[in-house]
Amino acid sequence: MTNEEIPGGTVLNLWKLVISRFNKTLSELSDEQLQKQVAPGRNRVFYLVGHLLAVHDRMFPLLGLGDRLHPELDEIYVANPDRAFADPLSATELRRAWADVNDTLTAAFEKFTLEDWLQKHTAVSDEEFVKDPTRNRLAIVINRTSHASYHSGQVVLAK
Amino acid sequence: MTNEEIPGGTVLNLWKLVISRFNKTLSELSDEQLQKQVAPGRNRVFYLVGHLLAVHDRMFPLLGLGDRLHPELDEIYVANPDRAFADPLSATELRRAWADVNDTLTAAFEKFTLEDWLQKHTAVSDEEFVKDPTRNRLAIVINRTSHASYHSGQVVLAK
Repeated sequence: MTNEEIPGGTVLNLWKLVISRFNKTLSELSDEQLQKQVAPGRNRVFYLVGHLLAVHDRMFPLLGLGDRLHPELDEIYVANPDRAFADPLSATELRRAWADVNDTLTAAFEKFTLEDWLQKHTAVSDEEFVKDPTRNRLAIVINRTSHASYHSGQVVLAK
Repeated sequence: MTNEEIPGGTVLNLWKLVISRFNKTLSELSDEQLQKQVAPGRNRVFYLVGHLLAVHDRMFPLLGLGDRLHPELDEIYVANPDRAFADPLSATELRRAWADVNDTLTAAFEKFTLEDWLQKHTAVSDEEFVKDPTRNRLAIVINRTSHASYHSGQVVLAK
């Protein structure tokens, strides 16, 4: 690993660790347990996985990696609270989509050079980026990793 | 901000964001609410703050920043589960120690150059570090930020 590869590699390692730990927890929960609330009156595990799935899926356009795979999930798992709508996919479909989105993102991240990591994300303008160059792809992936950890701490309560 | 400052600055921004959000949640909880379990039978908020406090305090020697401020907390909040011991400090002392440790760490991180960030942490040997240069200070701070997010997702359930 060259010096140039270290910052991106460091962030990528944590992304992979957090996703793999989340996947381990998810693999230990039955489809019925996905319907459990993480605490009384709080979000179901199913909703939280749908939420993370939608938020991760949004990284495709945000990082300039192409079109989203599941734009239809935002309305249900991002714009609205749990139980506002019936789940539009089965537990099997949810698990599969979650794995697909993360695997595809991880494969793209593995090809990033430091220059790629430090490019601006697509939700920031050129002018804003000149003022604040930390609004880059590295920041998005660190932020999403931290966000996945946040909900991971909740999902584990359903075990 | 120069190119050299961007990776560390990006990580530092998220550290500050996660800590400030955690502090906001903490400020909205009364001392009595710190005794609440985040879910039935799970850790109390007080234990989780003590746990994060001890883990963050461990960063002083781990990152070569000097001696720990609260080594006595490990036994109670890291090595043992909640309710194994009585809390050795009051809610006021806990809140103050938590703010002190994070403020002192943040002030140190703000002085790090990219070279400082990419130095090895003290729990890795020279030989291991040659093989895996991502075992650096940047990795520790990203990891601890993600860890704080994990428990932040739990503490918010006590609100």
